[in-house]
Amino acid sequence: MSSKEKLECLIKQQGDLVRKLKSAKESKEKNSNSISFHSNISEKHLVALNNFLSSESYICGFWPTKADQELFELLTTKSCSNFDQYAHICRWYNHIKSYSKNEQMSFMSPSNDSLKNIQKVFLDCQIDNEVAKLLELKAQLSCENGDASNEVQKFILKTPKGTRDFSPQQMAIRESVFQKIVAVFKRHGAETIDTPIFELKDVLTGKYGEDSKLIYDLKDQGGEILSLRYDLTVPFARYLAMNKITNIKRYHIAKVYRRDNPSIARGRYREFYQCDFDIAGTYDLMIPDAECVRVVQEILESLDLGPFVIKLNHRLLLDGMFEACGVPPENFRSICSAVDKLDKSPWEEVRKEMVEEKGLPGDVADKIGHYVRMSGKTELVEKLLDDPNLTKIRSAVEGLEAMKLLLHYCELLGVNKKVVFDLSLARGLDYYTGVIYEAVLQGDSQEDGATSVGSIAGGGRYDNLVGMFDAKHKQVPCVGVSIGIERIFAVIEAKLFAAQNKVRTTEIEVFVASAQKNLLDHRMKLCKELWDEGFKVEQSYKKNPKLLAQLQHCEEAGIPLAVIIGESEIQKGVVKLREVTTRNEVEVPKDRLGDEIRKRLHFNMNGST
Amino acid sequence: MSSKEKLECLIKQQGDLVRKLKSAKESKEKNSNSISFHSNISEKHLVALNNFLSSESYICGFWPTKADQELFELLTTKSCSNFDQYAHICRWYNHIKSYSKNEQMSFMSPSNDSLKNIQKVFLDCQIDNEVAKLLELKAQLSCENGDASNEVQKFILKTPKGTRDFSPQQMAIRESVFQKIVAVFKRHGAETIDTPIFELKDVLTGKYGEDSKLIYDLKDQGGEILSLRYDLTVPFARYLAMNKITNIKRYHIAKVYRRDNPSIARGRYREFYQCDFDIAGTYDLMIPDAECVRVVQEILESLDLGPFVIKLNHRLLLDGMFEACGVPPENFRSICSAVDKLDKSPWEEVRKEMVEEKGLPGDVADKIGHYVRMSGKTELVEKLLDDPNLTKIRSAVEGLEAMKLLLHYCELLGVNKKVVFDLSLARGLDYYTGVIYEAVLQGDSQEDGATSVGSIAGGGRYDNLVGMFDAKHKQVPCVGVSIGIERIFAVIEAKLFAAQNKVRTTEIEVFVASAQKNLLDHRMKLCKELWDEGFKVEQSYKKNPKLLAQLQHCEEAGIPLAVIIGESEIQKGVVKLREVTTRNEVEVPKDRLGDEIRKRLHFNMNGST
Repeated sequence: MSSKEKLECLIKQQGDLVRKLKSAKESKEKNSNSISFHSNISEKHLVALNNFLSSESYICGFWPTKADQELFELLTTKSCSNFDQYAHICRWYNHIKSYSKNEQMSFMSPSNDSLKNIQKVFLDCQIDNEVAKLLELKAQLSCENGDASNEVQKFILKTPKGTRDFSPQQMAIRESVFQKIVAVFKRHGAETIDTPIFELKDVLTGKYGEDSKLIYDLKDQGGEILSLRYDLTVPFARYLAMNKITNIKRYHIAKVYRRDNPSIARGRYREFYQCDFDIAGTYDLMIPDAECVRVVQEILESLDLGPFVIKLNHRLLLDGMFEACGVPPENFRSICSAVDKLDKSPWEEVRKEMVEEKGLPGDVADKIGHYVRMSGKTELVEKLLDDPNLTKIRSAVEGLEAMKLLLHYCELLGVNKKVVFDLSLARGLDYYTGVIYEAVLQGDSQEDGATSVGSIAGGGRYDNLVGMFDAKHKQVPCVGVSIGIERIFAVIEAKLFAAQNKVRTTEIEVFVASAQKNLLDHRMKLCKELWDEGFKVEQSYKKNPKLLAQLQHCEEAGIPLAVIIGESEIQKGVVKLREVTTRNEVEVPKDRLGDEIRKRLHFNMNGST
Repeated sequence: MSSKEKLECLIKQQGDLVRKLKSAKESKEKNSNSISFHSNISEKHLVALNNFLSSESYICGFWPTKADQELFELLTTKSCSNFDQYAHICRWYNHIKSYSKNEQMSFMSPSNDSLKNIQKVFLDCQIDNEVAKLLELKAQLSCENGDASNEVQKFILKTPKGTRDFSPQQMAIRESVFQKIVAVFKRHGAETIDTPIFELKDVLTGKYGEDSKLIYDLKDQGGEILSLRYDLTVPFARYLAMNKITNIKRYHIAKVYRRDNPSIARGRYREFYQCDFDIAGTYDLMIPDAECVRVVQEILESLDLGPFVIKLNHRLLLDGMFEACGVPPENFRSICSAVDKLDKSPWEEVRKEMVEEKGLPGDVADKIGHYVRMSGKTELVEKLLDDPNLTKIRSAVEGLEAMKLLLHYCELLGVNKKVVFDLSLARGLDYYTGVIYEAVLQGDSQEDGATSVGSIAGGGRYDNLVGMFDAKHKQVPCVGVSIGIERIFAVIEAKLFAAQNKVRTTEIEVFVASAQKNLLDHRMKLCKELWDEGFKVEQSYKKNPKLLAQLQHCEEAGIPLAVIIGESEIQKGVVKLREVTTRNEVEVPKDRLGDEIRKRLHFNMNGST
């Protein structure tokens, strides 16, 4: 069957499904007798439900019914989303939650008639979803047929595969995480640079081995041949070589692009942030390398992600160990990439790959197995320095001496408790030439079940990369770490969701409200005065908003203070100042308003920290 | 002559030039008798010069000569760059500057021999430059010949055409500007979102008219057809429609891409930042529109860019005015784009375009001319509301009434002094449907000569854009402004350069230095303790750095405090705390070091603000 025929077949199936749903909707409208919220809860459902609840107190009319209880259960068990964006769902959900389980179970059944509305909402959503799928299939077909400007396509609104928008909630979390990370970088004197999002394709060529196929190329529209950057390290090396910079300590937080198969569930996207800290320059052995470990530790501690460990190893030691075990030099890299899998696979599997796939003699593999299952601290280095198999290999000794020094510096910098010298740490990238790092979160992967997060930072020394860009191959030694920022976001978002913490997306301190009609001019003047004093202030953009709507907005948005004006207040030259959480109100003379607000904000800030 | 032949011809010429320079260098090495710094001073020259001065006190040996004076003059008159990145040039430049003009003129001439070194440096630079040009030409030729993997190309290190890297200095400026702008957005309760850097090509199609040819397309590598975003407004509209968001106040600062012909001199790039603030939602007339004006005013004032004015006009009034003057409706947009040029061209030229290029009858153009030369405030609105030619056109009246209301709100919000109702303001974009804004810097364009900056912010109301993305064409009315952030950077960078202000690129507070050898362990421990207390600290990455080099680094990097340890201090349990600018040193017991540092930093901060 050609891909076109397959598509046509899929379109037919999908069309049938849509027709079935539509007829089900019609029959439900005539005669509905079950509650049945069995569809998957998508964002679309939540939007529709929120809309529904904006004008309905309960799912079926004016009192809670079994329908409320059933939907409440569904939302709770699916934990399908944070309701922050859905004020009306939030209101309803918290209200239903306030009933005890027993009370909930004694809700009466809704009438068939009163169920129709919500069922229509859910069925509409499901139909919308399936229609969207149908349209997408049709669009694919029309692409295959070559008529790209097909009408149908216009209505597929999505971001490109493997990419996503960030909502204000997500951005607020990202900003606070970036702030903490940047604070650490700055504490260590790092500067920041920026480079274009695309590079001449030649700059990227030959740097990523097999992964080069994942590079996004721009269309040749006349002019230069360009590609989107794949990481921040190669552009950094290009920047150093181009500007003949021989020493710099820089961080760079920016998006990179990989045409990988996105696994959204595992937090892998095609557009994602990298967050790199690198020290370039010819310095004494292991001094900048140790500071990178300290930087990782400070970041992970300041983000409070739970227990972690920073694994250390050294490329020279790995190579020396392979040599000592009898691996032919041309196989070092491929055996290295097998060792790299030890964090996910047991030794037996890795051994199998070495022997069966990569043709290593079994006894050589066993010798490797002896070493790569070792981990420890300085005492392990000392032990290995007594191993005659290793000490006869120069690079092994060099690597071990370097590790010893690094561990000594780690102790001086107070990071010895978090580091472990781990001979199984290999890291895939070819360009590492010295120390390699990897930080992993530990424990509670059983508890929260979903995500065994694993590696959240990694890096190493790469002394030869900059030279690849220099006409005379002049080297600039570099060492750095990359913080796995997307994984960190995923962990923090999950934590906040689990704790049902509300994330404020604005910093508004004062809302200016009116108690009666026709006070817009007064509100505007008051906003002006408060902005002039530097307060973060907003008001309704409606001419005559309802007081209740204004106060509800304050509560939903977490705004601490509201200033309320009314005719009588204006005549008396006062305003009402309301603390939103306590709902306490005091009358304040207008000329003392700024001071009173400052006093309360100051108190709030001190109270909450 | 084919383009290939042209290239070959250029390569020949360039090759000759390189050969000439190389032979000149040889003859100079044998027999040099002039100073001659006549080459253009490029960044490359500065890098080389800085390098040269890192080991030389003066241009020719151990005392100042005419060569110093001549080079000093050249650098001064060319004002070729900020020397922040060039510590050694800086040192030398300030030193030469400390001589009076008379003293400088009495420097003796250098010996021919002593001139050789610097001449070699400059000639090498020039040769490097010309060789780079030659290689680029050769690469172009090899592209034409189809052998893309040519060896020569490897060494053309550049960013793509129309793009640039940002140095730590530039990033420091950018960060401080962004911070001020974001502070204003937050004061007005804006949230932020982010969208992918590329969109499905269909999302961008049909939004930019003729400019669509400037969109960067990604290569079709299988999968979706993608383009880099051209602005932030269309992705914002897509985001609203896709997520069915009907009201939001958001800012978005991010890069956009246009395959325009870059005019670097005029600050036009192919990759550049946009900085947008938009209010979406169905609200009452002109209330959010007025807040946008307030936001622009707050931003421009907080950036302290000098006097500015915010021009206001209304699309409905423009259309109504065109109708009243007798322009056929199908010509509204093209006449509008002619009017748009009035900020750069005199009326006579614009009239000529209307009549000769666009075929408008002369008397119609004259009627337009009558209106578009008007500007004022509320009194102008009143005057036009008495104009019978306009009042018979419904949209003109609607536009005028809206302007009247907007000006009233501007007064309430305290922005009336900066706004002007200007009938010549047209703005190119098709999608505006209501108010349009444009902020321009005023005055002193004569004084600083170089840059008549012009428009630095602009925007308007676009009520129909979101509907283009909705299957049912559901509209979400929007109004917003875009801050011309790249122009603002250019202005601020020029100002800082003119004032020779040094921009700190790190925030290091304390440098840990050692006075003798073999104190690395002690330095590291001290760094650890200070980092633990939250200070921003760095040290040399060398094992045994020279004290002078360490202190010089502090002065160059603007680090306020240095902690100096030596054997005797360690034995006494004290350290020396040095204020870098005053060079005052005090002995401090180690256990009181944190407090002493805090005291001085606090004083510094208060002293400098």
